[in-house]
Amino acid sequence: MTDPPADVFLLPGPVRMDPRVLRAMARPAMNHRGPEFKEILADVRTLTQYVFGTKGEVAVLSGSGTAGLEAAVTGLVRKDDRVLNLVNGKFSQRFHELCGVFAHATALPFEWGTAVDPKKVASAMEAGAFRAVTVCWNETSTGLTNPMAEIAKVVKSHDAFLIVDGITAVGGLENQMDAWGIDALVMGSQKCLAAPAGLSAVALSKRAYDSLHSDTSFYTNLKAHVDALAKQDTPYTPAVPLFLAFREALILLKEEGLSNRIARTKRLAEAARAAVEALGLELFPDRRFASNTVSAIRYPEGVEDAKFRQILRERHRTIVAGGQDHLKGRIFRIGHMGICTFEDLEVGFRAIEATLAAEQYSFSKGVGVEAIRARSQSP
Amino acid sequence: MTDPPADVFLLPGPVRMDPRVLRAMARPAMNHRGPEFKEILADVRTLTQYVFGTKGEVAVLSGSGTAGLEAAVTGLVRKDDRVLNLVNGKFSQRFHELCGVFAHATALPFEWGTAVDPKKVASAMEAGAFRAVTVCWNETSTGLTNPMAEIAKVVKSHDAFLIVDGITAVGGLENQMDAWGIDALVMGSQKCLAAPAGLSAVALSKRAYDSLHSDTSFYTNLKAHVDALAKQDTPYTPAVPLFLAFREALILLKEEGLSNRIARTKRLAEAARAAVEALGLELFPDRRFASNTVSAIRYPEGVEDAKFRQILRERHRTIVAGGQDHLKGRIFRIGHMGICTFEDLEVGFRAIEATLAAEQYSFSKGVGVEAIRARSQSP
Repeated sequence: MTDPPADVFLLPGPVRMDPRVLRAMARPAMNHRGPEFKEILADVRTLTQYVFGTKGEVAVLSGSGTAGLEAAVTGLVRKDDRVLNLVNGKFSQRFHELCGVFAHATALPFEWGTAVDPKKVASAMEAGAFRAVTVCWNETSTGLTNPMAEIAKVVKSHDAFLIVDGITAVGGLENQMDAWGIDALVMGSQKCLAAPAGLSAVALSKRAYDSLHSDTSFYTNLKAHVDALAKQDTPYTPAVPLFLAFREALILLKEEGLSNRIARTKRLAEAARAAVEALGLELFPDRRFASNTVSAIRYPEGVEDAKFRQILRERHRTIVAGGQDHLKGRIFRIGHMGICTFEDLEVGFRAIEATLAAEQYSFSKGVGVEAIRARSQSP
Repeated sequence: MTDPPADVFLLPGPVRMDPRVLRAMARPAMNHRGPEFKEILADVRTLTQYVFGTKGEVAVLSGSGTAGLEAAVTGLVRKDDRVLNLVNGKFSQRFHELCGVFAHATALPFEWGTAVDPKKVASAMEAGAFRAVTVCWNETSTGLTNPMAEIAKVVKSHDAFLIVDGITAVGGLENQMDAWGIDALVMGSQKCLAAPAGLSAVALSKRAYDSLHSDTSFYTNLKAHVDALAKQDTPYTPAVPLFLAFREALILLKEEGLSNRIARTKRLAEAARAAVEALGLELFPDRRFASNTVSAIRYPEGVEDAKFRQILRERHRTIVAGGQDHLKGRIFRIGHMGICTFEDLEVGFRAIEATLAAEQYSFSKGVGVEAIRARSQSP
């Protein structure tokens, strides 16, 4: 153990966890086929439907977000099916690579930091018969939220399944999956829910559930997971401590109320963006599509990524994320989802200001922190 | 929460965990791409090689044992390859079903409770060209250990990969995977290692590592997992708390010493078998192949499974497992692996005796407990 635990943990996931969640996780071993765990799975199912805002079927897999995406894809498409992948960042690119293993996958690329254009999706769909379309609702790599309702409208007008990576969206962004017509929506435990990393959840439309097959999956066999959960069971040994923590995090979310959490996440995001602007910094993504769960911020001239994050970590015990792939060194990213508070943001931006000052970036000292404080006090 | 936590937790996995493991797990969120987690992964890799007793490559997946088996199978065989599955219990049957999804799988069945016969394996292999053979080293469902070295010798004499489910074997049974020629060996975190459920580890021979392909897997892409771990990384978001707990459980194992743990597990198994015999009960499996990590015991006439385990659980806070599939109602199973002690067994058998007595089974009161105590005192 070399580092002290961070006081300010602002990654775009995993995010800070409530002590109640940690305590729930650290229970002694439990019989995952016994009556007590059945009750836990019953709660998990109901509360997972709540966080997805759906009446449809759900599954919770012992595996991180990628496992959930794989379950949705392998359950709905076959090797010869054509799948259209909307790609505008690292995670949508990875989603495309995943689809390439299990289907005939075609990428429709958009520049990183710009949103998916529904008109271009419509043209692509008219040009080819796709069984499914994938999109990353909230691109964690670029801090951008794609226009989900509009994309869903286009996909729904064709006869294709809409499979959505909602890993940093569900529980943090306004969601009407049933009304919009999302067929499969995937979330990760360690993001807006603020549970530990290691579980993923999938919600399905009725027509998606009715179409599930098991030809190319075993561990991620979505039908097996859905049907088992409906009977308070799991097809394989579950990651018991993660389920205990997941349930507690869902209870915390329900106590706050889903719409309250989404509204609070939005206020935090607006505060973070106000601080960025006050400091004379620039968001990476198109401002109109800036994400409410993660902000991606361009480094100003002269501020070097590794050094910036090292100072933050070592001098200020503050953890933020860097950029990925070709954005490495060009941006840093902060998460403001889950149980993140205005205090977290304020302390985080105080550390960011101090680090920028140490790196000779010039700005009016205190304006970032002040912007957050002002927002925290507005209704 | 309906049940009180069990005082005596004798499942054949998940097994009782050391408080150090629980404490390691309940840490606040950690950056899984930061320097601290890299050190943890470095430890995990070295100590995983230690528990497997191998110099070869290893991977640790965020998924339970089935995920590890899927990784080994999808990494080594392709859809058109023929795979021979040696089946003599529920878990080897499931392994066969898994292989059926990813390859052309043929089962060679043996009666449940009897061991795999290496001579019959040899005949089957002479009759067909198999790319791989799978075996469940220790059949948790029947409390039976297959003759691993002899099976390996047969498979090695043909040009096939030997893929072994060692989920309740590795860390509890004598293992010479490199010398015997096992190509892929899979363990589960919640068994002999006494870590929480939710991780699986895979160890590979050199020729297996050199043959890995990524055509049919993504989340369980074994090459991606192996190569990432060698660089203190993971291909996808890891189940961070489970890795922290896994590492602590590995450190505990190293402190005890692998050979000491294996010897202690053997002494516990002998004590359990002595108690079973003293009580006039019968083991389910062929006595010559009785497992050292889990004992499967036939119910005597007149003792009903559900009631027996309910009394144990509610009156004596003691958890044991029932039978599975056609063995449901016919046997109960107790685990004596991991950090199980003679005290655990003694208290467990005291509860078993009291429950048998309550169910009108007649035996000399105290002989089971006495048999365990006698063994615990012998060198």
